[in-house]
Amino acid sequence: MENRITRLFNIRYPIIQAGMIWCSGWRLASAVSNAGGLGLIGSGSMYPEVLEEHIRKCKEATDQLFGVNVPLSYPHREAIFDILIKEKIKIIFTSAGNPAIWTSYLKEQGMTVVHVIASVKSAKKCDESGIDAIVAEGFEAGGHDGKDETTIFTLAPLIRKAVSLPLIAAGGIATGRGMLAAFALGAEGVQIGTRFVVSEESSAHPEFKKRILEAKDGDTSLMMKKVVPVRLLKNKFSDEIRKMEARGASAEELMNILGKGRAMRGMFEGDMEEGELEIGQVSALLDELMPAGAIVEEIMREFSEAKQELTKL
Amino acid sequence: MENRITRLFNIRYPIIQAGMIWCSGWRLASAVSNAGGLGLIGSGSMYPEVLEEHIRKCKEATDQLFGVNVPLSYPHREAIFDILIKEKIKIIFTSAGNPAIWTSYLKEQGMTVVHVIASVKSAKKCDESGIDAIVAEGFEAGGHDGKDETTIFTLAPLIRKAVSLPLIAAGGIATGRGMLAAFALGAEGVQIGTRFVVSEESSAHPEFKKRILEAKDGDTSLMMKKVVPVRLLKNKFSDEIRKMEARGASAEELMNILGKGRAMRGMFEGDMEEGELEIGQVSALLDELMPAGAIVEEIMREFSEAKQELTKL
Repeated sequence: MENRITRLFNIRYPIIQAGMIWCSGWRLASAVSNAGGLGLIGSGSMYPEVLEEHIRKCKEATDQLFGVNVPLSYPHREAIFDILIKEKIKIIFTSAGNPAIWTSYLKEQGMTVVHVIASVKSAKKCDESGIDAIVAEGFEAGGHDGKDETTIFTLAPLIRKAVSLPLIAAGGIATGRGMLAAFALGAEGVQIGTRFVVSEESSAHPEFKKRILEAKDGDTSLMMKKVVPVRLLKNKFSDEIRKMEARGASAEELMNILGKGRAMRGMFEGDMEEGELEIGQVSALLDELMPAGAIVEEIMREFSEAKQELTKL
Repeated sequence: MENRITRLFNIRYPIIQAGMIWCSGWRLASAVSNAGGLGLIGSGSMYPEVLEEHIRKCKEATDQLFGVNVPLSYPHREAIFDILIKEKIKIIFTSAGNPAIWTSYLKEQGMTVVHVIASVKSAKKCDESGIDAIVAEGFEAGGHDGKDETTIFTLAPLIRKAVSLPLIAAGGIATGRGMLAAFALGAEGVQIGTRFVVSEESSAHPEFKKRILEAKDGDTSLMMKKVVPVRLLKNKFSDEIRKMEARGASAEELMNILGKGRAMRGMFEGDMEEGELEIGQVSALLDELMPAGAIVEEIMREFSEAKQELTKL
């Protein structure tokens, strides 16, 4: 398959592994890039020197291109940019901020810049900012989501209609059938997070992976809407948030209970009760831990099979 | 196209027009059935004698089969069942209640019984109850939605995996591309609401139709979660609900502000400020009022075109 996304990143398959905090270091990113997709290192949970180490190890583990995800709200973002420039990283995925501020600077450094959005308004801002491709992320995605709660089924065709930029769909996609549905809605690539969290190479804690594989529909919930909406796997901590929100707790109270280090505690250290467990709705569909490369192969095989089936209709 | 859904209802296209309160009377249902889909009269906003009149007029307007949607929570449901039996209605879509209680009775009357669900647990209950087909309705749908907030992108493959019943996808589907995406996810038919609300034959108030065509992404919101979750177009009334919910208002307070007749006032009488306006997220994608028959034709044409495009990948 060849399209604008495979050409933009020089990859075999238009599958991008999401750059996620605490889950996607050099092992996962290099495995996905080696398998023909695009691996991303998630810098949002890394101090600059940790990121530097991951980039170096990733280069040793693959001769393919890989990228780095940088939340623009991240306090260390400028130190991160300096590392990306020094290490000659060619692909950056930015999220959680205004693309107008940094895009031209990053592009002057020779980078391909992709931005994650969840609304038509943000997509148009990307278009004006010179972004190279858009990730449209639906309400069903794990971690931080948009405030409008637009699902990928509605968002993808809206973005396709609003801007002509290459479009990557994210949220709810974990299989070849999901990828095919995203393409039917106008996407040219998919960004997959949850499925890769339960890969062998992900740095998520084994207990977290186990809980994801056990998850059923209704086991995640979009919370903290008064602060920044985030989709979490339900546990003791999320239950506390739910009760606070039901009684009308303020953003400040919610920030206080969140505190510091909750995500690390849950996803990386394996505290399944008090940790923050960011994961997508599609966790309910998953029941097998696999190597990341095998996941890429399985998705592409299922994509082709499902396409053949549709053709016969 | 022929599949389990077209055979079950003896229809040309596997497109079902949702039976919606205040919008889908005999004019809309007969237009859709005449166009080769399945039209449904929405009985949830009708007194039994009003429904009887709609059924008679629908029979005069089409010689094709049509069905009736009955919310099982509706106080008049038994009077409604009696009318359906008397009028020899062969297709009933039930929603908002337990299918185990009524399905065998309705099937003994010779009816094909379809039930609307939003979770794997409910789908399994349908399977045990002898239901003939399932409508899996995602979070993006207008009106009453499930508590789990599972989107159609996640829900459809989960239901496909959990039960072998014929599967109709609903929520977020308004176009041929949407229909194709739903089929990629395992659906064999689609139920479409919002798109038919803005048809010429819908009984929605012209002001309501106008507002739907103007709607952008983010203009609907799932509210009243402490009572029964319902997706509404944002207006003065919904803004009041939003503020009450933010301060932690109780289910009782929310029921009080809702009061009686809000939905009629908004959707049927055209009060755009104080009325309750039930509509789906996909309203953001719509910009043209068309006859229902032309909508069916356009969806099928786009479905075929999009299928051809996918084949070339």
